[in-house]
Amino acid sequence: MKLLSFTDDVGDYRLGVVDDDFVVDVTSRLGDQVSRGTVSPMRALLAKDVPLADVIGDLDGQRLPLASVRFASIVPDPPKIIAAPVNYRDHQAEMQEDFHIDALGIFLKATSSVLGSGGVVRLPYTDRRFDQEGELAVVIGRPASHVSIDDALNYVAGYTTLLDMTMRGGEDRSTRKSFDSFTPVGPYLVTPDEAGPPENMRLRTWVNGELRQDADVRDLIWDVPRLISYASSVMSLQPGDIITTGTPAGIGQVSDGDQVAVEITNLGRLEVAVTSEGAVSCPTRGAARGPKPPENVTPIRAR
Amino acid sequence: MKLLSFTDDVGDYRLGVVDDDFVVDVTSRLGDQVSRGTVSPMRALLAKDVPLADVIGDLDGQRLPLASVRFASIVPDPPKIIAAPVNYRDHQAEMQEDFHIDALGIFLKATSSVLGSGGVVRLPYTDRRFDQEGELAVVIGRPASHVSIDDALNYVAGYTTLLDMTMRGGEDRSTRKSFDSFTPVGPYLVTPDEAGPPENMRLRTWVNGELRQDADVRDLIWDVPRLISYASSVMSLQPGDIITTGTPAGIGQVSDGDQVAVEITNLGRLEVAVTSEGAVSCPTRGAARGPKPPENVTPIRAR
Repeated sequence: MKLLSFTDDVGDYRLGVVDDDFVVDVTSRLGDQVSRGTVSPMRALLAKDVPLADVIGDLDGQRLPLASVRFASIVPDPPKIIAAPVNYRDHQAEMQEDFHIDALGIFLKATSSVLGSGGVVRLPYTDRRFDQEGELAVVIGRPASHVSIDDALNYVAGYTTLLDMTMRGGEDRSTRKSFDSFTPVGPYLVTPDEAGPPENMRLRTWVNGELRQDADVRDLIWDVPRLISYASSVMSLQPGDIITTGTPAGIGQVSDGDQVAVEITNLGRLEVAVTSEGAVSCPTRGAARGPKPPENVTPIRAR
Repeated sequence: MKLLSFTDDVGDYRLGVVDDDFVVDVTSRLGDQVSRGTVSPMRALLAKDVPLADVIGDLDGQRLPLASVRFASIVPDPPKIIAAPVNYRDHQAEMQEDFHIDALGIFLKATSSVLGSGGVVRLPYTDRRFDQEGELAVVIGRPASHVSIDDALNYVAGYTTLLDMTMRGGEDRSTRKSFDSFTPVGPYLVTPDEAGPPENMRLRTWVNGELRQDADVRDLIWDVPRLISYASSVMSLQPGDIITTGTPAGIGQVSDGDQVAVEITNLGRLEVAVTSEGAVSCPTRGAARGPKPPENVTPIRAR
């Protein structure tokens, strides 16, 4: 099953299920919990802790052409966004990083930074470098604390594609990666049965049609079960939490007017535009410090 | 006005107002928004974006002895916890840090790490050092994005006391400071009229009755308005967000069985116990890196 969050004409969040080229609006099946405007329909769905298919039922109901839908972040209001700092060896090499996830742990992105596919990433500063980082992410479906590696995948509601937009420099990761619009995520939440195992997934990122990242998810340093297990040992996981697994080699600068796309096997295509409209000079002095990214982007050939 | 969140016999959150030695339960005045279990009463109150006193009205109603109340985190479910990494010069000196907030920006703590006054901080590892960091925090009362320094205090619902419990080492700050129970906050949300201006506040932290931190909040490198203004330029602030302003000199190790207390002028006393029950060896290898804290705690004399 492919689920999505989208917005209606007045900007309220709706929950949809993809059926071929259509979206079936299943928001009303969640009962009155979501009518109060306190949590999004997707959060309400995930909080139910029953098989998603049982809540959603059949696919009768209002059908919208998929092409007409305004995507929101698959979870518009995640309780947390947990991220892996250096979790592919080729990315560790390109960044000349001495350490990877087993020394760095995890970091947090602001939940206010989410963006739906088709949205616009807004670069905040005129005098800093910003890069694209395509990633596989999971959405947590059940409360999880200290879960074992063997049990970890039982807490996954589904998989999705995420862009961890990043400012380079010496500021804390949470600052450099949490500007509004810096976490495009979606377009779909794909349930594990339809997504298949993460180790079979291939991740590709394009900027203006040029391929920059092309990686096998099986090359993760900490694979998905280990990352979930570790994260759940640091902080209690809640339904709707997003855990993003880290980016492979091929990060590079993005600028005003760029188009960025990420595709992962079975998860669809996440696509956003980039603008520097309204950008100002950066008020913090971290530009000269921090991990050193490659100066130039070397486009790669498709395999 | 002093507000608090507390839990009832079945563990549900309630909203109270302090009246001398009593708490008036005002939860029912929020209408049916909170009866769905989706947001806490305090979040629902702050989301209303009207003067808190207008929602709460008079102080008739069920009165509970203050001493009998089980405190929750003043906001049990904050959308974000935003923190300042190095924001007092004496703390920068004791940590031998080359940089402070104007080069580091802000970081995030997991919202799942909150704890009420009277709770127990659980140290997760047997082989790592953990320190107490007493701080002044503000709670945001209105949506805020790119607010000016002059306007910033208009977005503050109130002030409170916070303990930024911290593991030392080279892991990302979000890991080192986000373990469950690592953000005790409260006991009260004190409205600005009753709290008075932050620059008049004095902060003191005790461990087992020994004074470790004694600072004037006016010594903040980035004061409260500047910190709020900056944070709102990085990430959209939402009602219920907690912004904690950083810790002064006097951090030091805490261990199993310790009692930690923080007091700030007009904000009351935040008090927690510390346990290492259930602690295991640390799975990440950051112990030898990171900022260097003072090896020994030097208790200070009260001024």
